[in-house]
Amino acid sequence: MTNTAFTQPMKVLFRHCDPAGVVFYPRYFEIINDMVEAFFDHVGFPFEDILKDGGVPTVQVETTFQAPSRHGDHLTLSLELTRVGTASLGVSVIAEGRDAHRFSANLTLVHIDAAHRPKPWSDPMRQAFSPYLRSKQ
Amino acid sequence: MTNTAFTQPMKVLFRHCDPAGVVFYPRYFEIINDMVEAFFDHVGFPFEDILKDGGVPTVQVETTFQAPSRHGDHLTLSLELTRVGTASLGVSVIAEGRDAHRFSANLTLVHIDAAHRPKPWSDPMRQAFSPYLRSKQ
Amino acid sequence: MTNTAFTQPMKVLFRHCDPAGVVFYPRYFEIINDMVEAFFDHVGFPFEDILKDGGVPTVQVETTFQAPSRHGDHLTLSLELTRVGTASLGVSVIAEGRDAHRFSANLTLVHIDAAHRPKPWSDPMRQAFSPYLRSKQ
Amino acid sequence: MTNTAFTQPMKVLFRHCDPAGVVFYPRYFEIINDMVEAFFDHVGFPFEDILKDGGVPTVQVETTFQAPSRHGDHLTLSLELTRVGTASLGVSVIAEGRDAHRFSANLTLVHIDAAHRPKPWSDPMRQAFSPYLRSKQ
Repeated sequence: MTNTAFTQPMKVLFRHCDPAGVVFYPRYFEIINDMVEAFFDHVGFPFEDILKDGGVPTVQVETTFQAPSRHGDHLTLSLELTRVGTASLGVSVIAEGRDAHRFSANLTLVHIDAAHRPKPWSDPMRQAFSPYLRSKQ
Repeated sequence: MTNTAFTQPMKVLFRHCDPAGVVFYPRYFEIINDMVEAFFDHVGFPFEDILKDGGVPTVQVETTFQAPSRHGDHLTLSLELTRVGTASLGVSVIAEGRDAHRFSANLTLVHIDAAHRPKPWSDPMRQAFSPYLRSKQ
Repeated sequence: MTNTAFTQPMKVLFRHCDPAGVVFYPRYFEIINDMVEAFFDHVGFPFEDILKDGGVPTVQVETTFQAPSRHGDHLTLSLELTRVGTASLGVSVIAEGRDAHRFSANLTLVHIDAAHRPKPWSDPMRQAFSPYLRSKQ
Repeated sequence: MTNTAFTQPMKVLFRHCDPAGVVFYPRYFEIINDMVEAFFDHVGFPFEDILKDGGVPTVQVETTFQAPSRHGDHLTLSLELTRVGTASLGVSVIAEGRDAHRFSANLTLVHIDAAHRPKPWSDPMRQAFSPYLRSKQ
């Protein structure tokens, strides 16, 4: 069984970089958040709709920055789901440059209602997520 | 033996918050980076000097966001060192609100030279770090 | 008649700077917004209270960046009011380094209610603003 | 005589918005800078090349925010040149939503060398700019 990754190209912009000439790591989390937002858009559940009566805050992040990325570098971002819980979601985002991995991030998101309580994913959401769930070996 | 934490108060500003009215998590990494920069300043090795012929990039981050922080909240940030390696540094940054932990972050920094190779901490740097190294039980 | 400026020191941080080693100009607007937020705090009308049933969006900005600011530079920020309208506020924010002006910004803010309509400043607000209104010659 | 505008679609993302649910104005300057960077890319002079021995800092900005933009809004950004000086460039960036103008910005950029002195635009640069110069009436 194979799975599908949601991928997007990106170029490292001036705005992302620091005085050392490489991406300032908090900007990577903006990039990761944009990627997660694009994924929800892509599967038909845009953040701007979810936000109307709740949200999907990130409650845990683990990230390794394997190699620096420089202004002008072209990266490929890939997103896969590592786990679909009752109201949580495990998300993996990886960035690859021409030569090497740049970063690998594992996030845990929680679906909440307007009162900040966990809110189970609906069935249509689960179905939309399923092609992107990493297959087990 | 006890150790000392480097602490700073901070107020959650408008700039940190998202449409859900809480801190947008990439902004926490800006706050964490500011805190690490303030620590290096405090112990006598400001980033702007280190940057002249190298840097201290963050190569790994693990963060748990225990509870959301809202605009206007007053937090206390505490930084301790968890490990002083040859050219690496383990750093813990914790934020506490009046009621609860808001986030706990563990970072690994690497001291590099201008060619991006690991560069051992100097003896004066090690001495400056030592009061902030978390004591083992 | 003299007026009072609201001043704050600031240090240019790593986070503010771009690959050219100087402050990336959108970061100046974050600095300016923090300064305006600190001013409202200082005069007793914190943003987090105003935001409960309205806001003070910035509707116009004119800024001149006279000289670049580098990582580690110490600046003095000064805020004065140039005009207190019915529901609007003219604000001047200036940054000075040791040697030279770094930027001068003129902003127009509008006080709005929750329905985004202009909302006149209350009398206590006008009184709080008045010491900071630039005197005419 | 007609001129050409460089246009790009954009969607207002979660990252751009503040607790009032609209774009936080310093984020507009990140959007404007990305647009200017995309324009230089488009005409064959990417920022990452120009930065190798100089830069194009923004020295003056005037912006009017006509109407707020909300999370999920689709905007069209248009860039035109208002003036090509010896080493300076007048740039207009406008954002339109479905209904109304959202912001209009006028920027002045200066082409500098590595020593921060003005550096005249080369002839190929002037030729690349010329289709985007706003025609006079």
